[in-house]
Amino acid sequence: MSQRGRFITLEGGEGVGKSTNLQFVADWLRAQGQDVISTREPGGTSRAEDIRHLLLDPVPDEPLSVDTELLLMFAARAQHLAEKILPALERGTWVVCDRFTDATYAYQGGGRGIAFERIATLEHFVQRGLQPDLTLLLDMPVEAASHRVASRLSHQGGERDRFEREHGEFFDAVRNAYLERAAQAPQRFAVINAAESLELVQVAIADALAKRVAAWP
Amino acid sequence: MSQRGRFITLEGGEGVGKSTNLQFVADWLRAQGQDVISTREPGGTSRAEDIRHLLLDPVPDEPLSVDTELLLMFAARAQHLAEKILPALERGTWVVCDRFTDATYAYQGGGRGIAFERIATLEHFVQRGLQPDLTLLLDMPVEAASHRVASRLSHQGGERDRFEREHGEFFDAVRNAYLERAAQAPQRFAVINAAESLELVQVAIADALAKRVAAWP
Repeated sequence: MSQRGRFITLEGGEGVGKSTNLQFVADWLRAQGQDVISTREPGGTSRAEDIRHLLLDPVPDEPLSVDTELLLMFAARAQHLAEKILPALERGTWVVCDRFTDATYAYQGGGRGIAFERIATLEHFVQRGLQPDLTLLLDMPVEAASHRVASRLSHQGGERDRFEREHGEFFDAVRNAYLERAAQAPQRFAVINAAESLELVQVAIADALAKRVAAWP
Repeated sequence: MSQRGRFITLEGGEGVGKSTNLQFVADWLRAQGQDVISTREPGGTSRAEDIRHLLLDPVPDEPLSVDTELLLMFAARAQHLAEKILPALERGTWVVCDRFTDATYAYQGGGRGIAFERIATLEHFVQRGLQPDLTLLLDMPVEAASHRVASRLSHQGGERDRFEREHGEFFDAVRNAYLERAAQAPQRFAVINAAESLELVQVAIADALAKRVAAWP
């Protein structure tokens, strides 16, 4: 039987460079000889992406209640775990995921003000103890990240989703919740200064990966 | 301030006559001078109906995990409560609802085999103690109800949804779970023999309503 795969998540607010660096992480691990899939939340499977649309698409007629948003996040996560993440880990494939439950603590907890204990209830319900082996938190000041999002939208087009339409205090609360999560679980988190150049960010990511992966049995 | 409205749910498997009798209950209460809305689960609001589609539409490519199905049910319920049921009750309107959490115990618990304790975790999470004031359980043998569904589909057309495609043992388990729920909360439930003629069923419903409503402060 092959050894169980490892589960690595990338976290951070809007505009910190998660997509670019997700690819970098997957490539780095493949260069080490690992079988790797990369995926994202909310979504990652066909039905979970259907749920993602409900979560992200702005609709004028009826706001989602905060409890609804939280339950939909975990519904998408349950589907993603059952259909993609757990089967991959079990067959020895490593999984690199753009956002996971730390994002729920940051956005629905920090941003929307849902008590962390309520999020923990659903986390235990869905994950039954599963945690990422390593979480790379891409951190930078909110204002600088916000300029990056605006620049991306003006160059590539597209509309802001329900979360991207939030305002400064929301994103400050998201960032603070992420940093608080990282401080509480330093053995799982590596905090990367994402305000640096892409080259320096990737040196830091490679360094974190090399140190953590080498320490795993 | 007006008195808080009452919350009445209709429960039962496929083909027991919930839709017809929901209208009867709403009309009966209006004849008593109550302001009444009737609604249904999963659904009842625009976003909750979006979630209903994810739950009911059969899709060939990827099955919903049992946890996903359960979380989506409660996501739709949280939205329905926040946007429709609670505001109505608070302004003194009575709410008559086609299915509520007892259906989750019956279908996801009895039918799919999810432990009742797991359902209770989400029930407490979403409802924070709220229970229907009265639940009318329309009960009849599964085989007879199944003939009614087949007859309705052959006369009115339409396709079976994800639940209607289930088989005999599933519906037996649903019925047994409903009857178990009713036995555990006899002060909340009235069990109606739905195998009788519509006239006799409605006499029994009116009788149950008259007795319960008269006993409320």
